[in-house]
Amino acid sequence: MRWNKISDAVVRRLPIYLRVLDDLAKSGDTPLISSQELGEKAGVGSALVRKDLAWFGEFGKQGVGYEVEYLRSELRQILNLDREHNVILVGAGSLGVALARYAVRRCQEDESFSLKLIGLFDQDPDKVGRAYAGVPVYAMAEMEGFIRKHNVRMAIITVPADAAQEIALRLVESGVRAILNFAPAKLILPGHVQVANADLTLELQRLAYYLPPGQTEPQG
Amino acid sequence: MRWNKISDAVVRRLPIYLRVLDDLAKSGDTPLISSQELGEKAGVGSALVRKDLAWFGEFGKQGVGYEVEYLRSELRQILNLDREHNVILVGAGSLGVALARYAVRRCQEDESFSLKLIGLFDQDPDKVGRAYAGVPVYAMAEMEGFIRKHNVRMAIITVPADAAQEIALRLVESGVRAILNFAPAKLILPGHVQVANADLTLELQRLAYYLPPGQTEPQG
Repeated sequence: MRWNKISDAVVRRLPIYLRVLDDLAKSGDTPLISSQELGEKAGVGSALVRKDLAWFGEFGKQGVGYEVEYLRSELRQILNLDREHNVILVGAGSLGVALARYAVRRCQEDESFSLKLIGLFDQDPDKVGRAYAGVPVYAMAEMEGFIRKHNVRMAIITVPADAAQEIALRLVESGVRAILNFAPAKLILPGHVQVANADLTLELQRLAYYLPPGQTEPQG
Repeated sequence: MRWNKISDAVVRRLPIYLRVLDDLAKSGDTPLISSQELGEKAGVGSALVRKDLAWFGEFGKQGVGYEVEYLRSELRQILNLDREHNVILVGAGSLGVALARYAVRRCQEDESFSLKLIGLFDQDPDKVGRAYAGVPVYAMAEMEGFIRKHNVRMAIITVPADAAQEIALRLVESGVRAILNFAPAKLILPGHVQVANADLTLELQRLAYYLPPGQTEPQG
C-alpha cells in the first residue's frame, strides 16, 4: 500500500474512472477527457473527480483535461493492475464455478482485469482433479502449499457460512492479503487484510426495505 | 418507503442486526440481548446500534436490552421481510443460474429471506422452457406481462454489460422498484428505483489496490 492515508471511498471510485477510460480507449477517438465528462460517465461530480485524482498526482491540465491513455496507465499502476496477480477461489459449488467462469472471461476480455484465477479448492473428492473454465480443482489440504508456491495474495471465498471464518484464517496465515467473501458470514481478520463482502443475502434484504409496502402481496 | 429520511447507511446495517437475531433465535437460549452484544456480533459499536434502532422506535429497555424475538419481528417488518416478494432474474447464463440456485436455497433455509424467485428470463430460445432450481426460464418478450401479472417489484440482472441498461429500463417501466445488478455497467434509472450494484470486477480491482506491490510477480 503506497498511499496509506487514502480513504477507501476514494479507492472505490478509481476502478470506475478506469472503466470509463478503458471504454474511451477502445473507441479510440478521444485522446482527452475533461473532469466534467469523466465525472458524468462515472456518475460523480467533476470536483470530486479532480479531488480524488489529486491524491495521487497531477494528471490533468487546467482547461485541457486528462490524456486518456496517460491517466489510464497511471490508474492501472495505482490500482496495482499493471501486472498480473494470482488468485484462488475456495468452494467450487455452483456459485464458485460460475464466478470462476466470470473471472476467467473478464481476464481474457478486459486488459485492466489482470487478476488470474489459477486454482479452485474444494473438499469434495469428486471435484478434485476436474477443471472449470480451464482452472483445476485442488484438495483443501493442498491450499496452504499452493498459496505459498504461487505467491497468491488474493482469494475468493464461496464456501457455506459456517466454514468461511476458518477458511479465511487459513488463507491469511498462508499469505493472502485481500479476500472477496461471498459467504453470508462476517469474517474477523487482522487489520492488514482487506475484505470485500459480496453478501447477496444482505443486499437483497436491504433492497426489500425500499419496496412499496402493501403492493407486493404474493398471488394466491 | 415508510421512513423517508433514514439514510441508506442505516438501512444497510438492519439486515446485519437481523442476521444476528436470527442466529440467536435458532440457538433458542437467549431471550434478551444488550446493544453491546448485538453490536459486537454485528461488528459495530453499541452506541450506533442504539442510534440506528431508535430511528424506528423504542425497542429496548435500558439496563435490560432487547427482546430477541420482538426485535427480530420488528426488524423483519421494517425491512418488508415479513411477507413474500416475487423476484425475477434476467440472464440465465452460468452466473444467473448459480444465483438462482443460491436465492432458492436461501429462501428455503432462511426464514428472514422472504424473496421468492419465480421466473428466469433469457434470450436464448434453447433455454426457454427449461427450469433451474425449479424456476422456469421464460422468453424476454414475456417479461413485461409477467412482471405485471405477478406483481414483481424486485429483479436481479445478470446480462452482459451492453444489454443491462435497456433491460433495466424495461424492468422499471413494468413496475420493478429494486434491482440487484451484476452487470459490469452503471445503470441510469429514475430516482424512485433502488439499485444495488454487485459489480465483481470493480470489487476485485479495488482489492488489488491493497495488495503489497512488488511481491506478487507472476511466476515464469
